[in-house]
Amino acid sequence: MLRFPLIVLNFKVYPEVIGENCIRLAKYAEEVADEYGVGVAVAPPITMLSRVVNSVGIPVFAQHVDPYLPGSWTGSTIVEMIKECGAVGSIVNHSERRVLLADISMVIKRLKENGLIPLLCTDTVDTTRAGAALYPDILAVEPPELIGTGIPVSKAKPEIVVGAVDVVKKINPSIHILCGAGISAGEDVAKAIELGTEGVLLSSAYVKAKNPKSILSSMAESAVKAWEKNQSSR
Amino acid sequence: MLRFPLIVLNFKVYPEVIGENCIRLAKYAEEVADEYGVGVAVAPPITMLSRVVNSVGIPVFAQHVDPYLPGSWTGSTIVEMIKECGAVGSIVNHSERRVLLADISMVIKRLKENGLIPLLCTDTVDTTRAGAALYPDILAVEPPELIGTGIPVSKAKPEIVVGAVDVVKKINPSIHILCGAGISAGEDVAKAIELGTEGVLLSSAYVKAKNPKSILSSMAESAVKAWEKNQSSR
Amino acid sequence: MLRFPLIVLNFKVYPEVIGENCIRLAKYAEEVADEYGVGVAVAPPITMLSRVVNSVGIPVFAQHVDPYLPGSWTGSTIVEMIKECGAVGSIVNHSERRVLLADISMVIKRLKENGLIPLLCTDTVDTTRAGAALYPDILAVEPPELIGTGIPVSKAKPEIVVGAVDVVKKINPSIHILCGAGISAGEDVAKAIELGTEGVLLSSAYVKAKNPKSILSSMAESAVKAWEKNQSSR
Amino acid sequence: MLRFPLIVLNFKVYPEVIGENCIRLAKYAEEVADEYGVGVAVAPPITMLSRVVNSVGIPVFAQHVDPYLPGSWTGSTIVEMIKECGAVGSIVNHSERRVLLADISMVIKRLKENGLIPLLCTDTVDTTRAGAALYPDILAVEPPELIGTGIPVSKAKPEIVVGAVDVVKKINPSIHILCGAGISAGEDVAKAIELGTEGVLLSSAYVKAKNPKSILSSMAESAVKAWEKNQSSR
Repeated sequence: MLRFPLIVLNFKVYPEVIGENCIRLAKYAEEVADEYGVGVAVAPPITMLSRVVNSVGIPVFAQHVDPYLPGSWTGSTIVEMIKECGAVGSIVNHSERRVLLADISMVIKRLKENGLIPLLCTDTVDTTRAGAALYPDILAVEPPELIGTGIPVSKAKPEIVVGAVDVVKKINPSIHILCGAGISAGEDVAKAIELGTEGVLLSSAYVKAKNPKSILSSMAESAVKAWEKNQSSR
Repeated sequence: MLRFPLIVLNFKVYPEVIGENCIRLAKYAEEVADEYGVGVAVAPPITMLSRVVNSVGIPVFAQHVDPYLPGSWTGSTIVEMIKECGAVGSIVNHSERRVLLADISMVIKRLKENGLIPLLCTDTVDTTRAGAALYPDILAVEPPELIGTGIPVSKAKPEIVVGAVDVVKKINPSIHILCGAGISAGEDVAKAIELGTEGVLLSSAYVKAKNPKSILSSMAESAVKAWEKNQSSR
Repeated sequence: MLRFPLIVLNFKVYPEVIGENCIRLAKYAEEVADEYGVGVAVAPPITMLSRVVNSVGIPVFAQHVDPYLPGSWTGSTIVEMIKECGAVGSIVNHSERRVLLADISMVIKRLKENGLIPLLCTDTVDTTRAGAALYPDILAVEPPELIGTGIPVSKAKPEIVVGAVDVVKKINPSIHILCGAGISAGEDVAKAIELGTEGVLLSSAYVKAKNPKSILSSMAESAVKAWEKNQSSR
Repeated sequence: MLRFPLIVLNFKVYPEVIGENCIRLAKYAEEVADEYGVGVAVAPPITMLSRVVNSVGIPVFAQHVDPYLPGSWTGSTIVEMIKECGAVGSIVNHSERRVLLADISMVIKRLKENGLIPLLCTDTVDTTRAGAALYPDILAVEPPELIGTGIPVSKAKPEIVVGAVDVVKKINPSIHILCGAGISAGEDVAKAIELGTEGVLLSSAYVKAKNPKSILSSMAESAVKAWEKNQSSR
């Protein structure tokens, strides 16, 4: 269902993604995915989820999902709801929406039981080790202090990326690892892949770009090149 | 935009409202509203919000909304999102989704600034007094211990309903007051209106009914009768 | 039990107040209270509460208290615990420890039932109106954006102070109103009292002062003068 | 600093432990520890922490601690505060006080940096695996649905205990593992140790016992026997 290297675009709830522009940004992502042969996934605001799924063929994630079973949980977003929309999975524990350990575990379990993909966010090597022990399908390490800065984690704190890749490999090598925070150019994506990840998670650099398709194309191109280099060097 | 007496149907995230049945339940509500000339509003799960708005002509509420401005708030539901869907307002501070005082105030303000209707839930006479002081358009008093019990607040704790009506009148008589918790039959609705409210907030009695349209019709009929009696006695 | 004008010193959990220096800072507060004939109260870290109570004769507040009855609430601080320590009351809903509306109401009720004093914090005129409707004994309005800045609310946003005084008077004139945020000198205290409050809530300006007793003395002196001026002008 | 087998007595905030009786219950615990040569530790309410430390020679834990550094965190309990009281460590993430994954990680790190012992609670085999990956000194597995029931986890869900022991061994065999929930008699303690744990975490069975010293003595005796049997069978 997913293709690697993978670029996950978290739309957050920026003004740019509330309404039709959200669909436009999702379509650009699909075009770039097709053109460069890379994986690109989008995570739109929850109210746009079904509309985005119906507009594009690339994987669509929710940004957050609560751990509860269907029932009397006014105002919650549960796994069955995003599945009904056609989402392929959900981001879990983003630094802007942290979750209790017990709930992270429950959400990962419920997503998998429903055939959906948990994309777990962690912030340090330690929480990555703990997160990997919960067996999410994808794990994205994102030092929160770099989010939105334009300073890429792959440059500013490569030791966190390398450390995260290392602990994930030890605990469960089948988990796909991404990195995020500050990713804003093709070279940041290339560097992330060189450090051993399988892609990136980013947000404002795409959503708020003057020319989002152009920046994403450049990232996709860099991703493919770095990926091929990695493969050939094995 | 709203018609009184008003029956607000909170769909929560019951299994019955995830998918097409949600639309069916919203359409029944519209039919009953038209047939009996009462206000009926629905609050579907957030992922169904735009679909329900596009399917019915009655007012549609969100079940919860976060206080933030558009921006980097991964996984949040903000006012602009539900407005874009065509919702008329949002439930705020439901007992299953309690909110900080500072955030209740901010959400009410942001909803109104966006031309939307805050429907604030409170649980006691004291919190109703405090809630009324924040000037929501609608205030629903619901003792949480009665929610889902089938024991109507209007019978079990009429003093809370009467007390709530009283404090709202004193602080801001333009606030519409509803009552909720345990409302499951026409007589509960009638009693609620006799106690001075302008309608009810209910959930499982409708969503989980064998014949939801029939139970809602009976409530609408009772609401109209009690309402007329109140009007004529003034 | 309390004397006005009142200066409440919130010790927070600054490094300066963990250990013996906490007692020293509380004793200075007592000396200033005695010397200038003003009310001075302290709110030490919770682990120091009983030790501070046993060391000084001035009123001692907790910084936060949970709404629960005694029972299985591991890690909570409940009303009975701070009462047993000899505290006279508790700060409620400080901007660094915001509380759900339903819980604020419950905590105020439980404090009063136990003969203790709720000191409720709010941040705007709107939340002050709502807070006043819950009938705390003391209400401190503190715009959080000014906390710790050294820019006094009484200067930067006098309209919030005046507005808060006004709504409190309307809802329940027996509530004592303080103001906080940015209070760092005697003139800020004077200005606060001139605007109609009965005192101030402050923290870093005292705890982190080179000479805390001196700064507090200057505040006490200004408080007394402004207070007398207010009284004589009535 | 700790002796095994270990019985940790979580006093919660039961009415029985607010005031002098708390000291009495701590002293009984010390007497039993001395008499039977087992480890017994107590976790009193936070306001009693320093008084209990000053009254007994056995290890004293906090029930909860926040992840923050000393600073402007009104109402928080931080590591430096419990250290100053003389606590040896803190319970972390009790089911009645769940914590975010990122904060659990930070609290464990900060406790260790301050020479204190994290006692992490988890609820399932999965969260135990994740918790063990954060390297706490002690890990207590407690299915929350059994807490306070008197139905011991060691009997009702031995597979959780065995599974937890197993994953901890694999991830970091130096972590001491306890089990909790429903422990109410000597045989429950024996069974827990037979299943591979090094002790138990309990609360109401001790705090609310008619004769707390007698029940604890019986548990200590069973613990010693089971422990010796385990040792000799290795």
